[in-house]
Amino acid sequence: MTQRQLHLNAFIHGTGHHEASWRHKDVDPRAELSLEHYLKIATTAERGKLDSLFLADGLAISSNIQFNAYSSFEPLTLLSALATATERIGLIATASTSYNQPYSLARALASVDRISKGRAGWNIVTSAGQGEAKNFNLADRPAHAARYERAHEFLETAKELWDSWDDDAVVANQETGRYSDPDKIHPIDHEGKHFQVRGPLNLPRPLQGHPLLVQAGSSEAGKEFAARHAEAVFTAHLSVESAREFYADLKGRLGAFGRSSDALLILPGISAYIGDSQEEAQEKYDYLNSLANPEYGVQQLSQQLDFDLSAYPLDAQLPELPEGTDGTQSRKKLIVDVARKESLTIRELTRKLAGARGHFTFIGTPAQVADEIELWFTTGAADGFNIMPPTFPGGLDDFIDKVVPLLQERGLFRTEYTGHTLREHYGLARPEPILPAATLALSA
Amino acid sequence: MTQRQLHLNAFIHGTGHHEASWRHKDVDPRAELSLEHYLKIATTAERGKLDSLFLADGLAISSNIQFNAYSSFEPLTLLSALATATERIGLIATASTSYNQPYSLARALASVDRISKGRAGWNIVTSAGQGEAKNFNLADRPAHAARYERAHEFLETAKELWDSWDDDAVVANQETGRYSDPDKIHPIDHEGKHFQVRGPLNLPRPLQGHPLLVQAGSSEAGKEFAARHAEAVFTAHLSVESAREFYADLKGRLGAFGRSSDALLILPGISAYIGDSQEEAQEKYDYLNSLANPEYGVQQLSQQLDFDLSAYPLDAQLPELPEGTDGTQSRKKLIVDVARKESLTIRELTRKLAGARGHFTFIGTPAQVADEIELWFTTGAADGFNIMPPTFPGGLDDFIDKVVPLLQERGLFRTEYTGHTLREHYGLARPEPILPAATLALSA
Repeated sequence: MTQRQLHLNAFIHGTGHHEASWRHKDVDPRAELSLEHYLKIATTAERGKLDSLFLADGLAISSNIQFNAYSSFEPLTLLSALATATERIGLIATASTSYNQPYSLARALASVDRISKGRAGWNIVTSAGQGEAKNFNLADRPAHAARYERAHEFLETAKELWDSWDDDAVVANQETGRYSDPDKIHPIDHEGKHFQVRGPLNLPRPLQGHPLLVQAGSSEAGKEFAARHAEAVFTAHLSVESAREFYADLKGRLGAFGRSSDALLILPGISAYIGDSQEEAQEKYDYLNSLANPEYGVQQLSQQLDFDLSAYPLDAQLPELPEGTDGTQSRKKLIVDVARKESLTIRELTRKLAGARGHFTFIGTPAQVADEIELWFTTGAADGFNIMPPTFPGGLDDFIDKVVPLLQERGLFRTEYTGHTLREHYGLARPEPILPAATLALSA
Repeated sequence: MTQRQLHLNAFIHGTGHHEASWRHKDVDPRAELSLEHYLKIATTAERGKLDSLFLADGLAISSNIQFNAYSSFEPLTLLSALATATERIGLIATASTSYNQPYSLARALASVDRISKGRAGWNIVTSAGQGEAKNFNLADRPAHAARYERAHEFLETAKELWDSWDDDAVVANQETGRYSDPDKIHPIDHEGKHFQVRGPLNLPRPLQGHPLLVQAGSSEAGKEFAARHAEAVFTAHLSVESAREFYADLKGRLGAFGRSSDALLILPGISAYIGDSQEEAQEKYDYLNSLANPEYGVQQLSQQLDFDLSAYPLDAQLPELPEGTDGTQSRKKLIVDVARKESLTIRELTRKLAGARGHFTFIGTPAQVADEIELWFTTGAADGFNIMPPTFPGGLDDFIDKVVPLLQERGLFRTEYTGHTLREHYGLARPEPILPAATLALSA
């Protein structure tokens, strides 16, 4: 048996994951609005043989836009543009189940999958934001449970649509003039609470069967949803212990859905400040923190905690927080827990989050970063990582040029792509069609 | 004053506009499912200095899929992929106002505009199909008037969203740490019958201000909509007389909306069969028609006429048709008129439509094609053309290599791009922001 290997995803985020990345002296502060910036990131990540690129997304403007760059290319269009300039690396787009329709989104994802020859992934989000609801005809965001109920039906409908063409439905016989076999293209006649969709989709089955399904919510409902549908999970942990706990919890839920523990990969975020010496790495970290705006940090923290902290002294401890209106938000709990455990002031807490919004931050030499990755990977905390460079392109270059070769030397990471599709990179099976039993052939 | 020049758009349509194109001996019948096919079309059209590429679209499967190739890459994702491989040519995507939300679509279009450095266009459709409604939670399609009412509000909302960032809102001052000027980013607080959208958009104003707005409906409501909003109109005419009538009618409507007659360009479709001799051109046409399936032709015609013709003899005249359920469909009227005027049998009518679904078909030498184009252009029938090659890539190669040079020699078409954006190619102004009067700055 071959050695178990890491899966590494490049999490694209404007000019970098540090909130002050756009102010870095080596960064073009307007780079996040140009395609060339992303082309460079994509080709660098592919040079490093990474599994995939990932774009997060939201459907409303940040309230702190005056202090921070805010990249919002629409993910499916940007990843399509990157597909043309790359050959092997996977392309994972975030898209909402609350503010899309299954027909449109299933089709757009099938389209990207075909454009990229089987490299599309979908990070499924339910869009918890208040501002997002107000851009989509709602006065208030739907409740957490309602969002997940809709998400579940959305997923079922999307899978039915992808499977509405058998893999061999296209015949394209020039002699007989038969383009497709109508017995192999099925309406889905989905009649649910949220969606009524006749189908079939107007595009053949994706090359991957279904695009790779990714999820990132860590609430109770989020974990159940992941255990049921997701094939990769992006997650934020500030310590290896927290990551191990999450890993064991989530892997333990798979059996209930008839899935084996390797049917879902868990990829925590890591934001590494890499220097040839420990001092150089620390300097990089300190330099970026010196550029961070405390006012922005407090605004950002207030938003993450759903509680306005602007009137509190920066050097006071985090105050007691009321129960949130949507108390199941997992990221909020994570932040409050670490503040209490480490007795952090508001200033210290904002600094801790400035690097990567609650993801794991690591400062060290390439060998130390590789050691840390190996530790998480070999002690039940991770199947790989969501790589979150503090700056782009420099921080990604550091990781690809200095850390990846060490992981390859240790046999922990591929030296060449062996597969062509995103599923092949992740070592995940191509799904069999799951058609509704009552399906009728189009010709009937 | 420089000579008035043609505007030419390449209308991409799978393996070609002739319904039997996929059966052509020189065509790869599966090409329409591969990105490479479209990359070749895009680079050929750009080599010919064409203004733009255009993708039509529908949100349901054709009922005749067994007999005909059916290309349905989602237009915005496919055009994004083509943006990476081209530099100057415009990219026009069809998208529906009935089955999208303004926030998502305005953003995706703004994204493509920025990815392509100002080359995006939107062909606005209201989705008349019954099958489309059934893929989006409806038992029946909305009535014609209701679709246009929603389309109008959709456009207003989209324009408000594009204009929600002033052109100079991004400051990106690394020294001061100010990324944007919040006084220049405005919520739109749109509260309409169909849409309630707070805004602002989460992407800066498109490089073109608004993407180029294109429309193709020729009904009364469609023409009013075009006169109000559209900057280019794609239209189908079987004769130059019909095109002249349409041209005068539509241009005459612009004044009522305070627009000059050159604020909107009219581009009829032309499907040219090009041979070095008249005989060779005719052979190309006859060869493709010999591959057409009469059963498919009747199904297609029945669909276009909203009336089942399968029980009627192929060699009988077109029967009397009942008033349609949606009697304003302009394409239907055009087909019935030509059948009556030329006393066509059902078989003859299907053949007439096989080439390009009711668009003008021309068979001749490159010089004859150029003459015909010049005739339409100089006698009030067209500002340019929607080029609809019978086959891809061969039919487009013929047009680019043989007809375009003649048009250039005659001074009717550019020999090099002079502009960089789609608006510049079309000679259309970049729109000023039209902000709602009640707009408040984000910081207020």
